[in-house]
Amino acid sequence: MSEPVVLINLFEVPAADAEQFIAEWEKARDYLETQPGYVDTVLHQALAPEAGFQFVNVARWSSPEEFAAAIRSPGFQQTSAGMARYGAHPALYRVVRT
Amino acid sequence: MSEPVVLINLFEVPAADAEQFIAEWEKARDYLETQPGYVDTVLHQALAPEAGFQFVNVARWSSPEEFAAAIRSPGFQQTSAGMARYGAHPALYRVVRT
Repeated sequence: MSEPVVLINLFEVPAADAEQFIAEWEKARDYLETQPGYVDTVLHQALAPEAGFQFVNVARWSSPEEFAAAIRSPGFQQTSAGMARYGAHPALYRVVRT
Repeated sequence: MSEPVVLINLFEVPAADAEQFIAEWEKARDYLETQPGYVDTVLHQALAPEAGFQFVNVARWSSPEEFAAAIRSPGFQQTSAGMARYGAHPALYRVVRT
């Protein structure tokens, strides 16, 4: 029953922290793109600085199992430590219509 | 200063309303894809029925001005009327990293 999935992660980041957040996100991305099941990722920044979620990451993975294994790995724990200060709301989705 | 933009719209939909929501969303999509500036759209449904946002729409437009004109149009007001019962949290984004 495995299927391709899309991680959508909503981040609460103060406008003043945007550059720092992007640098931290890149560290985690550089690690995750080496992991089995990674397909691609797009980081979006809100046009309005007062948006509730200033950043939204949309990442495709080959299966929920491979995504889960990647974020459980010590490498992810290390490379994502700098993002822990920001509120994050991740959930897994499937594509239902285009 | 116009630029390509991504609409990310988070929808609060009870699990029991999922099919109805998709049918309503398709009506609005069928209209919007005829409008100037529309690029493409992907509707995502959460794997977990208890997710805070059961549906997330990610749509690309050629410019914020064309997107704004499309949703101000009478055709959109008509075709999206059925979605008004659902909580929606739309915002415009730009792609900053991949």
